[in-house]
Amino acid sequence: MRNLKLLIEYDGSRYAGWQIQNQISPKILRLKKKTIQGEIEKVLKKILDHKVRLIGVGRTDAGVHAQGYVANFKTTKSITPISLQKALNGLLPGDIVVYQIKEVSSDFHSRFDAKSKTYRYSVVKDLVPSAIGRDYVYYFPFKISVSAMQKGAKYLIGKHNFSSFISSGNTQKNPNCTIFRLDVKNSRKTIDFYIEANYFLYRMARNIIGTLLEVGRGKILPSELKKILSFKDRQKAGPTAPAKGLCLIKVKY
Amino acid sequence: MRNLKLLIEYDGSRYAGWQIQNQISPKILRLKKKTIQGEIEKVLKKILDHKVRLIGVGRTDAGVHAQGYVANFKTTKSITPISLQKALNGLLPGDIVVYQIKEVSSDFHSRFDAKSKTYRYSVVKDLVPSAIGRDYVYYFPFKISVSAMQKGAKYLIGKHNFSSFISSGNTQKNPNCTIFRLDVKNSRKTIDFYIEANYFLYRMARNIIGTLLEVGRGKILPSELKKILSFKDRQKAGPTAPAKGLCLIKVKY
Repeated sequence: MRNLKLLIEYDGSRYAGWQIQNQISPKILRLKKKTIQGEIEKVLKKILDHKVRLIGVGRTDAGVHAQGYVANFKTTKSITPISLQKALNGLLPGDIVVYQIKEVSSDFHSRFDAKSKTYRYSVVKDLVPSAIGRDYVYYFPFKISVSAMQKGAKYLIGKHNFSSFISSGNTQKNPNCTIFRLDVKNSRKTIDFYIEANYFLYRMARNIIGTLLEVGRGKILPSELKKILSFKDRQKAGPTAPAKGLCLIKVKY
Repeated sequence: MRNLKLLIEYDGSRYAGWQIQNQISPKILRLKKKTIQGEIEKVLKKILDHKVRLIGVGRTDAGVHAQGYVANFKTTKSITPISLQKALNGLLPGDIVVYQIKEVSSDFHSRFDAKSKTYRYSVVKDLVPSAIGRDYVYYFPFKISVSAMQKGAKYLIGKHNFSSFISSGNTQKNPNCTIFRLDVKNSRKTIDFYIEANYFLYRMARNIIGTLLEVGRGKILPSELKKILSFKDRQKAGPTAPAKGLCLIKVKY
């Protein structure tokens, strides 16, 4: 069996996230939304003529984007990676692009072997929202202090119990994880957050960003983040930032 | 009468261009596409309670975007520019944003007074197309030489008869205009063209970019652009680059 590793970019706007919904929730059924995994598996089956189950690096929420999503799957077919990539991109919708396929060792597992994931979150800082690229940024209509957010971010770096930042619906048991990097960068039109951790609990990235924005707005002091962590209570932290500003940019192995 | 000048950003993907179609073409009727001008006039009428005719800096094709579109209109109503802006952005769809309104002298005319317009055209240079932001860039699937395009661009700068770059359907009589700037810039993921001229003839910007891309690909020599200009024949130049890569970024007065 060959094990093929895919690097994928997708615009999550039209999708109910990465993962195929085995038990379709009423909400998804109502919206008739597709998933990224579902779309790629459907096309792989057409090309390879056998059912494929993709192992993805993790779930992403509806509306979240990815520039460096990693998935792998096994096949006995001998198609070359480059031919498979061309066939996939020829058949996939324009908002999903496979930009690399590599043959890897048979024991490589996209999820279990991941050492860290990095997300970027982008916030428009202009006084008015953007029309262009509005599906990729969150318009936060308040004056925000980047330096306050940078100070606050420092309290979250390292290994902590992140229960205050986990939304209900989390399926992972261990609430302790390690944030390696949490940078707040000021660019011309946006403020960009870069957050790298060994793994992320349910909505953790969006809950951290939503809380940092409250710090930026002056509703929470930077030093209060230490206390918020210690409460281990989701109610103590800030709101969940909207999905569309979030993008999975890199997975390290 | 007060004269109000609007700075507008729009994502042209869903629209049949800037201009209201008085005689709706069968194609537009079939697609039931709206225009930017039509949407803004409709909302202005709601707010001001009188019919408004916007004077725009010029037409833009279906699918072309703008970050610095200029329009003006007259009203006797006393609403402040900031209140009008907030009301407009509250009522307009998310892909049209008015980011500034200023009261200007009564003789200001968005089109007649414009000294130059600058467009940016973005081409993806990766080996695969992009999923994210795919409505704002043109994926040109060939190896292209930036330096050849830079050499070729020099032949187009200045005052020339641009008949070889005017598509049929042009309504302006004078084919002579002046290109002040035509830069080809290499950035990380895209090649960006910046073209500034006193005015643009029908599809001139897209025809120039389409021709420069043929130069980049090696199908046309840079020096041939001089000859192509002298032929004054649209058949001699390259194809029209797709609308979605084009964005009106600045108008000078």
